[in-house]
Amino acid sequence: MEYEELTIEGRNAVIEAFRSGKTIDKLYLLEGCQDGPVMTIKREAKKCDTLVKYVTRERLNQLSQTGKHQGVIAVAAAYEYASVDDMLRAAKEKGEPPFLFLLDNIEDPHNLGAIIRTANLVGGHGVIIPRNRAVGLTATVAKASAGALNYTPVAKVTNLAKTIEDLKKEGLWFVCADMGGTPMYELNLKGPMGLVIGSEGEGVGRLVKEKCDMTAAIPMKGDIDSLNASVAAGVLAYEILRQRMM
Amino acid sequence: MEYEELTIEGRNAVIEAFRSGKTIDKLYLLEGCQDGPVMTIKREAKKCDTLVKYVTRERLNQLSQTGKHQGVIAVAAAYEYASVDDMLRAAKEKGEPPFLFLLDNIEDPHNLGAIIRTANLVGGHGVIIPRNRAVGLTATVAKASAGALNYTPVAKVTNLAKTIEDLKKEGLWFVCADMGGTPMYELNLKGPMGLVIGSEGEGVGRLVKEKCDMTAAIPMKGDIDSLNASVAAGVLAYEILRQRMM
Repeated sequence: MEYEELTIEGRNAVIEAFRSGKTIDKLYLLEGCQDGPVMTIKREAKKCDTLVKYVTRERLNQLSQTGKHQGVIAVAAAYEYASVDDMLRAAKEKGEPPFLFLLDNIEDPHNLGAIIRTANLVGGHGVIIPRNRAVGLTATVAKASAGALNYTPVAKVTNLAKTIEDLKKEGLWFVCADMGGTPMYELNLKGPMGLVIGSEGEGVGRLVKEKCDMTAAIPMKGDIDSLNASVAAGVLAYEILRQRMM
Repeated sequence: MEYEELTIEGRNAVIEAFRSGKTIDKLYLLEGCQDGPVMTIKREAKKCDTLVKYVTRERLNQLSQTGKHQGVIAVAAAYEYASVDDMLRAAKEKGEPPFLFLLDNIEDPHNLGAIIRTANLVGGHGVIIPRNRAVGLTATVAKASAGALNYTPVAKVTNLAKTIEDLKKEGLWFVCADMGGTPMYELNLKGPMGLVIGSEGEGVGRLVKEKCDMTAAIPMKGDIDSLNASVAAGVLAYEILRQRMM
């Protein structure tokens, strides 16, 4: 499978795409265009933190595949989000205890891509991200995942704390990374597991943390106080894998 | 010893720089900005008699090398590269077996910064990079290191293979990361250790690899074939720390 991009052209089509929740990576708008539908599109783009580029009519004509862009071309990731159920099913089919990654508002696309890459390599069955406030599956994420996005499913959920509750009913245990926790080597991290990783600046949110069964501390022997989020995810994920392999 | 110009961008990075005692020549702040972290930075600047300039967002964007200044850019005294001898001396003074990172042509500044950050947190005594062909200590590296660059010395050497030979005479053992190696859990990684990490695309170069005593494989259970370089460095570094702590 290869990662492909698709373009969506025309005002209504682009507005529809935004409203349907589709992830738009980039939006090209005809410079100087200020009418109602274009203002609506700008508002939607702002809400979604979509990168907007103002370009000339010539450039739009060049980019257009339909020839009917009406001054608006959106570039979307042709990537399908999975559901959490898909992930559980995949684990079951492989006869493995589920191993999921839950990312509490990772904002850096390089970190998100690197974590999807790690999830793939430790045998994780999927990555769950919150619908709002976090980075989506942009082309940068796909590139940073080094192809892992083609294999490791990613699901978007409305409420991470609620998802944890639901997954506990399926037998999963949850561990989150936090400095104040138990040294990770002393925890039993075998079995069906959800690994919760917090955002770069703020760590795991309080509501999510309260739902976790265990808090794992990565040993810190230095002067600063935290690892890069994707490195922290990697170190904890490999501790889980080490225990599973023993 | 060599000197390079260094700007430090972003709130945490600038606070860390002040607290580590680094000399800040000049501080640019976004005018009108009054929140907690910025007030902390102002206090630190006053303590250190640092010249503070209040500027517009446009001016900050102009000055910024990372594009992520968060309203704060410090111009620091040129960064001082350390020597490898400094690192060995620091280890000796702490009564610890030396633990050094050697990076064989890491090209991505985010990865270099993240690895310096990891080196700090596992109690590493320094990071050694080749003089040519690799990324140097830019503002992006400093920011990605999250302040670790103020504590963990970085040395530039002409020939990494030659440096490994010299360090072997000082009693260090060298382990490099490579898929074809022995599973890392089966290696004895205690004692004075140099961890060699290869570039993102090509891994560890042949000449450098031949000098290593051990080749460690990180288990791979997925579909793609490599971790992000800074994640791989983190996973191996923490396996070394785990064995040291046992």
